[in-house]
Amino acid sequence: MSNCIIAQSGGPTSVINSSVVGLINANKSLKIFDKVYGGLNGVEGILNGSIIDLTSINENELQTFRYTPSSGLGSCRYKLQNPDNSCDEYENLIQILREYDITSFFYVGGNDSMDTIAKLSAYAKKNNIHINFIGIPKTIDNDLMFTDHTPGFGSAARFVTTSVLETYLDSSVYLNNGIFILETMGRDTGWLAASACMAKIDNKPVADFIYLPETVFDKYKFINDVREKFKKQNKVYIVVSEGIKDGNGKFISEFQCVSDDKFGHTQLGGVSQYLRNLILDASITKRVKSLELGILQRCAMHCASNTDLDEAYNVGYIALESAAKNETGKMVAIKRENTKDYKASYFLVDADKIANNVKYFPTEWINEDGNFLKEEAYEYFLPLIADMPSLKMENNLPKYKAFNI
Amino acid sequence: MSNCIIAQSGGPTSVINSSVVGLINANKSLKIFDKVYGGLNGVEGILNGSIIDLTSINENELQTFRYTPSSGLGSCRYKLQNPDNSCDEYENLIQILREYDITSFFYVGGNDSMDTIAKLSAYAKKNNIHINFIGIPKTIDNDLMFTDHTPGFGSAARFVTTSVLETYLDSSVYLNNGIFILETMGRDTGWLAASACMAKIDNKPVADFIYLPETVFDKYKFINDVREKFKKQNKVYIVVSEGIKDGNGKFISEFQCVSDDKFGHTQLGGVSQYLRNLILDASITKRVKSLELGILQRCAMHCASNTDLDEAYNVGYIALESAAKNETGKMVAIKRENTKDYKASYFLVDADKIANNVKYFPTEWINEDGNFLKEEAYEYFLPLIADMPSLKMENNLPKYKAFNI
Repeated sequence: MSNCIIAQSGGPTSVINSSVVGLINANKSLKIFDKVYGGLNGVEGILNGSIIDLTSINENELQTFRYTPSSGLGSCRYKLQNPDNSCDEYENLIQILREYDITSFFYVGGNDSMDTIAKLSAYAKKNNIHINFIGIPKTIDNDLMFTDHTPGFGSAARFVTTSVLETYLDSSVYLNNGIFILETMGRDTGWLAASACMAKIDNKPVADFIYLPETVFDKYKFINDVREKFKKQNKVYIVVSEGIKDGNGKFISEFQCVSDDKFGHTQLGGVSQYLRNLILDASITKRVKSLELGILQRCAMHCASNTDLDEAYNVGYIALESAAKNETGKMVAIKRENTKDYKASYFLVDADKIANNVKYFPTEWINEDGNFLKEEAYEYFLPLIADMPSLKMENNLPKYKAFNI
Repeated sequence: MSNCIIAQSGGPTSVINSSVVGLINANKSLKIFDKVYGGLNGVEGILNGSIIDLTSINENELQTFRYTPSSGLGSCRYKLQNPDNSCDEYENLIQILREYDITSFFYVGGNDSMDTIAKLSAYAKKNNIHINFIGIPKTIDNDLMFTDHTPGFGSAARFVTTSVLETYLDSSVYLNNGIFILETMGRDTGWLAASACMAKIDNKPVADFIYLPETVFDKYKFINDVREKFKKQNKVYIVVSEGIKDGNGKFISEFQCVSDDKFGHTQLGGVSQYLRNLILDASITKRVKSLELGILQRCAMHCASNTDLDEAYNVGYIALESAAKNETGKMVAIKRENTKDYKASYFLVDADKIANNVKYFPTEWINEDGNFLKEEAYEYFLPLIADMPSLKMENNLPKYKAFNI
């Protein structure tokens, strides 16, 4: 038997290690490969020979790793050159894989990583190299084509939604309440911000407005909407995606990130700061707070979704099965079955169809005013955020395990 | 039998409603009062007649309320005048309490609230008014005198520590890692930032440096420390309290919050931004990220500590018992028993000794370099962050209940 290797790439998620464990366990069951290697820091690390043996990790450590957030094999942001320009990297990589007798290469990542899978599999086919390249999806942004959703998204959405509930309560305690703005990640798409529509108390959404990059942000309408809502209820809760744009397609955050402080540094204000300033300029109220969730939303394993964890595990498992069937240049995707209770199945899609593409939030799920979501969005999101996992604890804090630190 | 009233004041915590439920349940068991009223929005709301009856809330709702973060009776920041200047507020308040046949007044809050309790009880004694005034402690800042710690702190510390673990993993994934700065609350004291010393992987703290307001912040030493550490390990993780000060006692954050953007707004940069700029100016690396946890740390019930929840409940319970014993002008405090396993007991302390005082983090628990904590701190913190509660869920998200929204 030969060996395989798995590596991680791009921004981390809470459940990206679960995919690695799914693949390792698939190999334990199916006995396809002698060894499962881990490439540290993605293609970049593998090219440096940073390879570890994951085959004989004990069950206990493996379980801890499964519930550890962030890329426990390390990550990289490394794009392979076009092989028409230079094949050096390709040759180096193939050489290293051959040294380890590796016949399947698995890459957990987003659309850039699928570009790597597409390029490597095409190169291998062209040069009659018998190594399979399979992609395993991951991104909190939920913006990969063809797959119903991406592993990593459900857990991020669960943290965003929980934080919306909790900060809504926190920002509502005074008689003289103000306006609260929560900024989520989502540079290109609004999936994460949109998930805030699930935050409800007494079956009523707590967010008054949700702004996504998929609609043009009109600041005059924004000010008007906020003013009217504030008059009516003496508080307004706003969720905004970092990637909202104006009518010219320019990021709103670019209007904000321009000031210099007295030390000569550019201030990265963020879009929530910009909205805050719009409200202050319009004299709606002086009490405006904003909060950027930042990287918390992509690593908050303590608040992860079990559906997401399980599906991340499954796409790893299926990836190994697919390699055994001699598939290559494919990514494992998730299908939502047309059943009453939520059920996912898995299929393969060409990695080059995923690479460098973006799946936007459906505009038909956005209300006419462009400031909230329709029921369809809520129904799409809800099954993805099942209950939290029971984490391993040590001294009453989560016990985590990573191979790259 | 007469009635009692309970209200909440100051900044919210995750467990402040647990104290209300502890008091309601104490009355169910001990049958001291006919009715337990809730004052909405603290003294400010009570003066406006915002009073609800909490006596007959059903058990189900009460349990949901117990595990709801933030002040579910609303809050205020309202300081009573010195009665030597004007007694109007006092007379109005007493008049309202009499209308409801209230003979005990409970106030859940921090040192400002204990000032209210002290003033009201002194006024009542002086004027021969038979109403008892009892304080129930709460603050995430852990800065009340005499009590070993404050309800609200353990849950905030648990969220801070968990977030330190998770963001440490997230910020360590690349070969070329940078420097990460996490900013916690704690304007006057460093308890919350210090609690980050509990965040360990493989029994080693993940934070390299922790900076508290209790030591003078020396920016030259800071730059030197960070530079050396970065050289050694190619990444640095820093935790900083928002309240750190220079040698003249001036808040470091004041050096930052001075720039104007092109719209003419003052940018509130925060201390983590300031540290980031110091690192950039010193050319240690260009990869520096900072994150302010903001209000998440005081409302993250989904990550609360069961010890904290239980103790918050208990101080509410004991407060009611104390009123039955005709105590007044007192706050319920927590004592850490001198037992092998952690155990708390409760006692009363004069509210005027708590009011307007601050308990600082012990400087003898800070290392000589002023940039980390000693083992004593770790041992103090650890018992306060027991495992998370099992929250009531609705659609796989926490189900919350508040009376003020």
